[in-house]
Amino acid sequence: MTINYPQGTANQFPSNLQPQRPTIFGDRGMTLEEEINDSNKYYRNHNLAVIYKKPTPIQIVKVDYPKRSRAVIKEAYFRQASTTDYNGVYRGYYIDFEAKETRHKDSFPLSNFHQHQIDHLHQCLQQQGICFAFVKFVTLKRYFILPASVLIKFWQQAQKGGKKSMSRTFIATHALEIHPGYNPVLPYLEACDHLIQTLGDHHV
Amino acid sequence: MTINYPQGTANQFPSNLQPQRPTIFGDRGMTLEEEINDSNKYYRNHNLAVIYKKPTPIQIVKVDYPKRSRAVIKEAYFRQASTTDYNGVYRGYYIDFEAKETRHKDSFPLSNFHQHQIDHLHQCLQQQGICFAFVKFVTLKRYFILPASVLIKFWQQAQKGGKKSMSRTFIATHALEIHPGYNPVLPYLEACDHLIQTLGDHHV
Repeated sequence: MTINYPQGTANQFPSNLQPQRPTIFGDRGMTLEEEINDSNKYYRNHNLAVIYKKPTPIQIVKVDYPKRSRAVIKEAYFRQASTTDYNGVYRGYYIDFEAKETRHKDSFPLSNFHQHQIDHLHQCLQQQGICFAFVKFVTLKRYFILPASVLIKFWQQAQKGGKKSMSRTFIATHALEIHPGYNPVLPYLEACDHLIQTLGDHHV
Repeated sequence: MTINYPQGTANQFPSNLQPQRPTIFGDRGMTLEEEINDSNKYYRNHNLAVIYKKPTPIQIVKVDYPKRSRAVIKEAYFRQASTTDYNGVYRGYYIDFEAKETRHKDSFPLSNFHQHQIDHLHQCLQQQGICFAFVKFVTLKRYFILPASVLIKFWQQAQKGGKKSMSRTFIATHALEIHPGYNPVLPYLEACDHLIQTLGDHHV
């Protein structure tokens, strides 16, 4: 699937190559990842949930072991993750999600996702996990929890020739909006409660 | 806590520095990690559970971006994980565990664990996760699922001056033994079923 950037905001470099934005606490200036990590820390510290971002998978090729010093990795490569970025536990439920931000205002291109992430969400749904995509419209500062079931259905239709991009209206209709606060920055467990309710009493 | 190797089998190097053992399929010659990864793959392929080993956390210091070639990490360091090695979902339940093997025959030293792993297991237990240590006595080829609650209690007593090592008898009494097979190599979901039962109907 080719990436389509109608507004010319194509991001040419991997995110870790981007010039570091200064942290502005007025509008917080945080990336979605930072905001979620911050929220997860809050939830852990308050014994509300245990959710972490998984480390980036790295293929290590060469390691030096200098004497009296810790090991240094001298050659390694980024590998593609086989799962989503975040998982953990909340009230006995398994939580699993992928976080994605877009600078688009009116649409969210499916090219933000990879097949293996969709497959993983599908597998976790089958195991009765609470699964979703955490979507941020950066310029609008709006946040949505899009249930994995909706994402997967849309993805499957796209593969059969359907739309390659979700409109913001579609997302606003089918997702749960999260209103950012202070503690936590993104109070998204409320959306998890809602997803748990719709799941019903599924546990055997 | 100092590491105590009464039988002189002290392992002087990190595991990734050890000479590679040839894979002998007769007695399988697999490490516990390989056996668990193999079993998890079987469980995923049969839609029975979605459980993965988390990637090793790495602190990246320097990355080269050669033209027309993928990024190369030129300087990085191993970081200590803040969680356990494995997690995932099974029948709607959150599964979380740490895998440890020992060459001791009659005891399992607590020095195999770190405080942050114990803390993480404790936090996940509070969220009603299914949490345990997957223990392998390498020379005996015996495998045990030790419930996190038992491990945490023993750990806390050790901190107050109690024993620093679990006897194999203690483990055999308080853990569930897993008998290795072929598909999967380590059928440990059976032990998860047992832990789920003892948890009772905890889901709100």
